[in-house]
Amino acid sequence: MYRTHNNGQLRAADINKEVTLSGWVQKTRDKGFMMWVDLRDRYGITQLIFDEERSSKELMEKASQLGREFVIKVKGTVIERQSKNPNMPTGDVEILVSELTILNESKTPPFTIEDETDGGEDLRMKYRYLDIRRNPVRENLIFRHKVAIAVRNYLSEKGFVEVETPYLIKSTPEGARDFVVPSRMNEGQFYALPQSPQTFKQLLMVGGMDKYFQIVKCFRDEDLRADRQPEFTQIDCEMAFVDQEEILNAFEGLTRHLLKEINGVEVSDFPRMTYDEAMAKYGNDKPDIRFGMEFGELNEVAQHKDFGVFNQAELVVGIAVPGGNGFTRKEIDKIIDWVKRPQVGALGMVYSRCNDDGTYKSSVDKFFDQDDLAKWAEATGAKPGDLVCVLSGDKNKVRTQLSALRMHLAEELNLRDPKVFAPLWVIDFPLLEWDEETERYYAMHHPFTAPKPGQLELLATNPGDVKANAYDLVLNGNEIGGGSIRIHDRETQAKMFDYLGFTPEEAKEQFGFLMDAFQYGAPPHGGLAFGLDRLVAILGGQETIRDFIAFPKNNSGRDVMIDAPAPIDAKQLEELHLNVVTKS
Amino acid sequence: MYRTHNNGQLRAADINKEVTLSGWVQKTRDKGFMMWVDLRDRYGITQLIFDEERSSKELMEKASQLGREFVIKVKGTVIERQSKNPNMPTGDVEILVSELTILNESKTPPFTIEDETDGGEDLRMKYRYLDIRRNPVRENLIFRHKVAIAVRNYLSEKGFVEVETPYLIKSTPEGARDFVVPSRMNEGQFYALPQSPQTFKQLLMVGGMDKYFQIVKCFRDEDLRADRQPEFTQIDCEMAFVDQEEILNAFEGLTRHLLKEINGVEVSDFPRMTYDEAMAKYGNDKPDIRFGMEFGELNEVAQHKDFGVFNQAELVVGIAVPGGNGFTRKEIDKIIDWVKRPQVGALGMVYSRCNDDGTYKSSVDKFFDQDDLAKWAEATGAKPGDLVCVLSGDKNKVRTQLSALRMHLAEELNLRDPKVFAPLWVIDFPLLEWDEETERYYAMHHPFTAPKPGQLELLATNPGDVKANAYDLVLNGNEIGGGSIRIHDRETQAKMFDYLGFTPEEAKEQFGFLMDAFQYGAPPHGGLAFGLDRLVAILGGQETIRDFIAFPKNNSGRDVMIDAPAPIDAKQLEELHLNVVTKS
Repeated sequence: MYRTHNNGQLRAADINKEVTLSGWVQKTRDKGFMMWVDLRDRYGITQLIFDEERSSKELMEKASQLGREFVIKVKGTVIERQSKNPNMPTGDVEILVSELTILNESKTPPFTIEDETDGGEDLRMKYRYLDIRRNPVRENLIFRHKVAIAVRNYLSEKGFVEVETPYLIKSTPEGARDFVVPSRMNEGQFYALPQSPQTFKQLLMVGGMDKYFQIVKCFRDEDLRADRQPEFTQIDCEMAFVDQEEILNAFEGLTRHLLKEINGVEVSDFPRMTYDEAMAKYGNDKPDIRFGMEFGELNEVAQHKDFGVFNQAELVVGIAVPGGNGFTRKEIDKIIDWVKRPQVGALGMVYSRCNDDGTYKSSVDKFFDQDDLAKWAEATGAKPGDLVCVLSGDKNKVRTQLSALRMHLAEELNLRDPKVFAPLWVIDFPLLEWDEETERYYAMHHPFTAPKPGQLELLATNPGDVKANAYDLVLNGNEIGGGSIRIHDRETQAKMFDYLGFTPEEAKEQFGFLMDAFQYGAPPHGGLAFGLDRLVAILGGQETIRDFIAFPKNNSGRDVMIDAPAPIDAKQLEELHLNVVTKS
Repeated sequence: MYRTHNNGQLRAADINKEVTLSGWVQKTRDKGFMMWVDLRDRYGITQLIFDEERSSKELMEKASQLGREFVIKVKGTVIERQSKNPNMPTGDVEILVSELTILNESKTPPFTIEDETDGGEDLRMKYRYLDIRRNPVRENLIFRHKVAIAVRNYLSEKGFVEVETPYLIKSTPEGARDFVVPSRMNEGQFYALPQSPQTFKQLLMVGGMDKYFQIVKCFRDEDLRADRQPEFTQIDCEMAFVDQEEILNAFEGLTRHLLKEINGVEVSDFPRMTYDEAMAKYGNDKPDIRFGMEFGELNEVAQHKDFGVFNQAELVVGIAVPGGNGFTRKEIDKIIDWVKRPQVGALGMVYSRCNDDGTYKSSVDKFFDQDDLAKWAEATGAKPGDLVCVLSGDKNKVRTQLSALRMHLAEELNLRDPKVFAPLWVIDFPLLEWDEETERYYAMHHPFTAPKPGQLELLATNPGDVKANAYDLVLNGNEIGGGSIRIHDRETQAKMFDYLGFTPEEAKEQFGFLMDAFQYGAPPHGGLAFGLDRLVAILGGQETIRDFIAFPKNNSGRDVMIDAPAPIDAKQLEELHLNVVTKS
């Protein structure tokens, strides 16, 4: 028996009890005649005491050998602490140790096991098992567990059934790159790891499962951007015999439940906004609506003068920075430099100070008078004391730039309060998305998304205008989920594949099973998937998903702790009928 | 809005309500002037009625076009049914349809969507989405969900934290064959899919997580035996600062909870038996103890006469078949033929009939007298009316043969009642297992299992005698879980690897991260993993795990529905730095 209590458990009421505790040595304080040890486990810290008068010489000596992170077991008596520590749940008591067993020694850890550690990211990842001993990391993982179990119980109570779909499936070239798994028993053939259980959940709807969910790992072999993982977790959901409204309500319910259960927050409003509106108002399909600075389009009030930059622009658009008139010239120059960085890519920025007396002072006073600037203020909602920042150029680009600036300024001005939760449905997404590089349209969500009723015909003439019953759930400027109403008849699906450049043979080879299934009474259906990693991070008031993953991979897709990937045996390769081709 | 109610919901109390229902046409009965349709969904069946007098001509005509598995939506009024059906929850009512929409048509399905179908296994797997529409299959999947959520909530309430461990890890040659995943970004390197999260859960214990669980997919690239799947699901658990007793109690608690919550069964007894005892009494490390027929060893009472077969045997062992004296000579010959089949491999069988009058009649009366046979009866616990069956030969082989016979007879005599649950802990497993083929010892559980205290030294001299704190949980003759106390110090782990034939370099390359972790204060720990697929099947009173998996693979590891594995693009192979080697 290693323990009668854990290290977060003992209170004044336990005084005089004989107890056994086990855990890690957090720190020791050795005064020679007296010695204290902080004993730590997942549940807390309990102070142990050894002293010359009451402890044997052998015990004192053994105790003096203890180092940081040693694993020990002690027996002793709970006694009242002389100087109580009100900041610790166990701060009223300490253990007068009568017996000490060293269960395992420890080398000095490569970084301190404290809330604030001296270890850098790389070191902490290599020794992730030590990093997990730190309170913030461990608490994040426990938090993740709580969110997952709350999701499961909520959906289960609402009649959703968690069904495990297979991990060894078939590779399909549409979308991101698959990870593949060579088959030993089928020479030259491969399984693929799922990018999502999309087709399987649709087949479950065809199979009459009615309401499905699954918390499931998904895989994408992409060149990793910051804070992306090759394996990630989704809350994957699908419902049959529903329209978009019912899906939105179902998952609005889940989100409300989580915010209440996990964060103790009641969200009053769950607004909806079309994709077009989000792009026009925020330049972004996942706007953070915790703060204002909505876009004001200025074409009408800024293209009538002799200012060529504006006159040649497709779009002139501004935001009002609250209190921004307080910025010094230097600070404004810094903002201008910021938008001109290659990552943002603006060519410059025009601004107009809104003085407290109602007058304006702009960087383009040569061209625009007080009346013009008053109209800019009106269009952007600027009040005296604000600063209007204006960008211009190609519509799509300038929106993206101004969106970046808006988010940047919100960070600077501390407008992104992690304790405030502002969810938002962005709806009516376009069905297709133009890709500059390959000069063709791709499915914006995936090729199974249904166009809005009656819009299928537009594909031939105005493909970019076709809208879908596709929606994203946005929380505090992050997309936490997305989904759509799916195609459920074979003919429409065939048309979609055709439009996306699949030959009928390719469509059949890759998705024949789904097209077949649609012939046997497929019900109308739709669904959505949440990104659990991000959802958990945001509910936890943070934005780095890596902090909520037990054993994350680095930006090169490596697990630096176990050192994977790694070469495999020649025999293994041979069994898989494979040769590695070395670059010459 | 596709429905106001589902098809299992309406009752007499709903009569006169206007409702909208959607679902599949289960069957139609068309009398020309009147027509009934059984409308089905996950929740049940509701009868629709159309009749000449109350329905329009167009509606009648549309209804007459309906075929099996069409997906329809109807509006109508709930009315009282003329001939009520007490076997259906909705049997008191029917819907007088006023509006019918065909949402999707259906080709005639390749097999009937009924509890008992005319579709063979292969056909049902190819059209699994139709198979899932059948009640028994769908109910199995819902049952699985219920078990999984009960497991999660129980463990969570007991302080276990579900932590997701990675799927893209490193290949290790020890144990079964890994599935591997080529890395595009690291030429010539591979990830492996986990056979279990074993090392990660141990690292979580080193990391102070204290109590961990995870319901997780695992992967083994084995030549598939019947009812094995290349991907399968485990309930994986680990605890720190525990001895074997506490682990057994914890998971006895979980099992009791499941039996009560899921099956409504209170299990009074949870016996324990050593591995040696199980082998001696049942010839099997996962005995079904729902019935008797325990082994009686007969060496002392059968090797004193002139019967060479017994005298040369390492072990003579028998079982008493209850009521077996009732077997005809022909029936007994059939049993003898059965044990002589190559799959069992006995050379013959001796038997002794226990007559009701207390006399015996054996197949070896030439050699053994009534006193001898009375001792056989005593040793096997045979009563008048029973039949003693005796096998002899090499100890291990004969035990396996007699165990097979015992199970065979139990099936024949209907002693394996699926409604009775008899759990059993088999403990004190050997640490190592001899492999005839490679003529060496392998770790019986895995190389992380700790030998019993003080037995490590035996490795050098009597490796086969070393016992481990390793245990299996057996339910009705199936191993549903297994685990052990783990090694937690570097030195012992190094010795184990050395003993198992790893060079220090190999041990470091493959498990260096674990050996390192053991140097930084690893706590004592142990755990266990349940096979969820099998557990669910047994709780469901069945033994075929495939029936509880939504999309299982066949015995060649193929998904015949999606037709995976499959060849991949040349471009994909090139990106992965791979060539397929075709057999010449």
